[in-house]
Amino acid sequence: MTEPQHRRPILRGGEEFSRVLAFSDGLFAIAMTLLVVGIAVPTLSSPGDEGELWDALRELDSAYISFFISFAVIGRYWIAHHQFFRLLRELDYGLIWLNMVYLAFVAFLPFPTALLGTYFENPLSVAVYAVSIALVSGLEVLLLRHAHRHRLLERHPPNDVYRWGVLASSLPVLFFIGSIPLAFLSTTLAVLLWFGAVPLHAVMGRWRPADVDEYFG
Amino acid sequence: MTEPQHRRPILRGGEEFSRVLAFSDGLFAIAMTLLVVGIAVPTLSSPGDEGELWDALRELDSAYISFFISFAVIGRYWIAHHQFFRLLRELDYGLIWLNMVYLAFVAFLPFPTALLGTYFENPLSVAVYAVSIALVSGLEVLLLRHAHRHRLLERHPPNDVYRWGVLASSLPVLFFIGSIPLAFLSTTLAVLLWFGAVPLHAVMGRWRPADVDEYFG
Amino acid sequence: MTEPQHRRPILRGGEEFSRVLAFSDGLFAIAMTLLVVGIAVPTLSSPGDEGELWDALRELDSAYISFFISFAVIGRYWIAHHQFFRLLRELDYGLIWLNMVYLAFVAFLPFPTALLGTYFENPLSVAVYAVSIALVSGLEVLLLRHAHRHRLLERHPPNDVYRWGVLASSLPVLFFIGSIPLAFLSTTLAVLLWFGAVPLHAVMGRWRPADVDEYFG
Amino acid sequence: MTEPQHRRPILRGGEEFSRVLAFSDGLFAIAMTLLVVGIAVPTLSSPGDEGELWDALRELDSAYISFFISFAVIGRYWIAHHQFFRLLRELDYGLIWLNMVYLAFVAFLPFPTALLGTYFENPLSVAVYAVSIALVSGLEVLLLRHAHRHRLLERHPPNDVYRWGVLASSLPVLFFIGSIPLAFLSTTLAVLLWFGAVPLHAVMGRWRPADVDEYFG
Repeated sequence: MTEPQHRRPILRGGEEFSRVLAFSDGLFAIAMTLLVVGIAVPTLSSPGDEGELWDALRELDSAYISFFISFAVIGRYWIAHHQFFRLLRELDYGLIWLNMVYLAFVAFLPFPTALLGTYFENPLSVAVYAVSIALVSGLEVLLLRHAHRHRLLERHPPNDVYRWGVLASSLPVLFFIGSIPLAFLSTTLAVLLWFGAVPLHAVMGRWRPADVDEYFG
Repeated sequence: MTEPQHRRPILRGGEEFSRVLAFSDGLFAIAMTLLVVGIAVPTLSSPGDEGELWDALRELDSAYISFFISFAVIGRYWIAHHQFFRLLRELDYGLIWLNMVYLAFVAFLPFPTALLGTYFENPLSVAVYAVSIALVSGLEVLLLRHAHRHRLLERHPPNDVYRWGVLASSLPVLFFIGSIPLAFLSTTLAVLLWFGAVPLHAVMGRWRPADVDEYFG
Repeated sequence: MTEPQHRRPILRGGEEFSRVLAFSDGLFAIAMTLLVVGIAVPTLSSPGDEGELWDALRELDSAYISFFISFAVIGRYWIAHHQFFRLLRELDYGLIWLNMVYLAFVAFLPFPTALLGTYFENPLSVAVYAVSIALVSGLEVLLLRHAHRHRLLERHPPNDVYRWGVLASSLPVLFFIGSIPLAFLSTTLAVLLWFGAVPLHAVMGRWRPADVDEYFG
Repeated sequence: MTEPQHRRPILRGGEEFSRVLAFSDGLFAIAMTLLVVGIAVPTLSSPGDEGELWDALRELDSAYISFFISFAVIGRYWIAHHQFFRLLRELDYGLIWLNMVYLAFVAFLPFPTALLGTYFENPLSVAVYAVSIALVSGLEVLLLRHAHRHRLLERHPPNDVYRWGVLASSLPVLFFIGSIPLAFLSTTLAVLLWFGAVPLHAVMGRWRPADVDEYFG
């Protein structure tokens, strides 16, 4: 008898299962709220002059755009995390460690966001941002793969359903990596491509196996 | 049979319902605590001189005022969020996304707060602050509307009760937007108008339908 | 029949009771962790020189002291908050608002802490710190008073037990306010007085009514 | 009858047990997310120049390394905290206070991390970092000792199992303290030694008593 079988499983509904979620939720919430720290209050020569403040606030436009894009992007990952953990019957420490690595990249995101907010026109900022996001999506795929292999899912899906889930999680990786060469032509185009991920998701929905919702719904 | 019917509902009492609250609570708590970061420790020429420190601290008066106003304002929204989620029987991902958009504007609030703390006399600071708050209130209305339309409320209210709820959530929008032109006359007057929302709430209570508490109590 | 009686109570064990605790815990945790942001990494002329770094780190001694004092002080309030909420059977929105005001002053504490860390020798820093802490303790008393008057406690205590609880919560107010004049003689003495609160607590224990633990245990 | 026997125990499953975990999880999550604040967006002379940004980002390499090392280190402590609290049947206020002291050192970690990120080549940065980590590990040992002595563990372990647990928690103390003299030869070597803790853990596994998993699994 090998060692892990002695161990008590960390089942859904127990205090230890909840803690992993509470910790993840806290980390997501902080990473999203810290984004605002990247927007600095401008320094004015005449504090009461609304014209000068208006100009100063307009110059911050890329900072607001980065804030809201990043909030939406990390928010989408939180929702994906929420949907993924719904599927789990139990956790093992392998998954807890993988979740920690995933959260490390989520916690890192305020840095590329601030970079993008400051140097929106610099293709390298866009590239750094895209790589960071792609890494988070890549780890999402690994989480699903680990849960599937170690039979931690509530309902073990058939192969075609599982492959569809992997594909759906992998697509953002391709999209964000694919935007990098585009960024060297035009950073605005690259950022617009990211929004292209939304209709794509709807298109993918048409090809999904009939019984996906039974397992991933 | 359409797709959403396959999906398991996210019911009150379950782990997934709680996570949405935990995430929201975390985000509110951080946004409120980050407000203090906007108050910078002053630089003194003679560190031990209490007279100089006194003058430096007095110059920060608008920073303290902004901190406590914003804490009260965001705190009031947290309580409204608490009261709203009490009414729900279940969640759908539409509501979760709408809640995310709502939280984006909550997380943004430390920026207009710091702006107001630094340029209290500038009418544009007051305008930016008022618009930000009005957006949060506007999204509160959309949350209630979504929950009503998709029958997520514990007790589905009759039309007059629902309309009263929408009106009560919409009033702060009018109040904050209405304060903007006033800010260009006097920023202090505009801020004082915000406090006027408190007695108004009491006045509104007189006109509310007799059975409001049965549904929203 | 008056309005509040229609309303569903917020009972211990329910989702809404837990949210108030989760929100409070989040806010405490953030306020305590933000304290470290007040300790800035020093700037060195030769980055690899351990002698220069040693001197620079030693100059930060008051920053470390403030961090650990404030962590201990806020930690003690968290434990008091934990002990107080153990006693409650239910919440009302009056208590939720009062808790919000209490948390506002907790969230404010990183500012006086950073002030004390920067200007430890300035009596005014000590005074601002002491007043902030006294306000938190004062609000603790109001929370207990509200819970007692509105019969929210699990076991309604007799008058002598209640008065003892009020006295125990009020003592830090006196201690911190009492340290202010001392600060103008010596800031170190004033800070040492704060530690005097610890043995005092033990002394008070001798005079407490025999049945305190039955109600507040 | 002595006083503590009057008191209601804080049992696993109750609201008060959960709060201690929620507070700890929040604090860990914030300390880990704040690490990213230590990575400042570089200032460029020509904002759109990708070559200049590339050079500036490469200069931040020690900042990224510190971020990911610290995230991994604190993450490992969170997992150890998770594993430890799984073993508890109940809490007392002694353990809650000890946990608070432990969390103070966890909350302090962003400072040595930022120091290491800025002065990676300075042996004193490595020493400060190593001492901070060793203190956290030392307090982990005290937590286990307190729980064992006050019989708070779900299953009271026999002496050899308990001693093995103490030894496993104490080893990182030795490792980190042992790396300090090495840092004065080469900071890179010292940091590499920290990673040596991973295989060591596996080696230790061979010597552990046969029934460890029954108590600590």
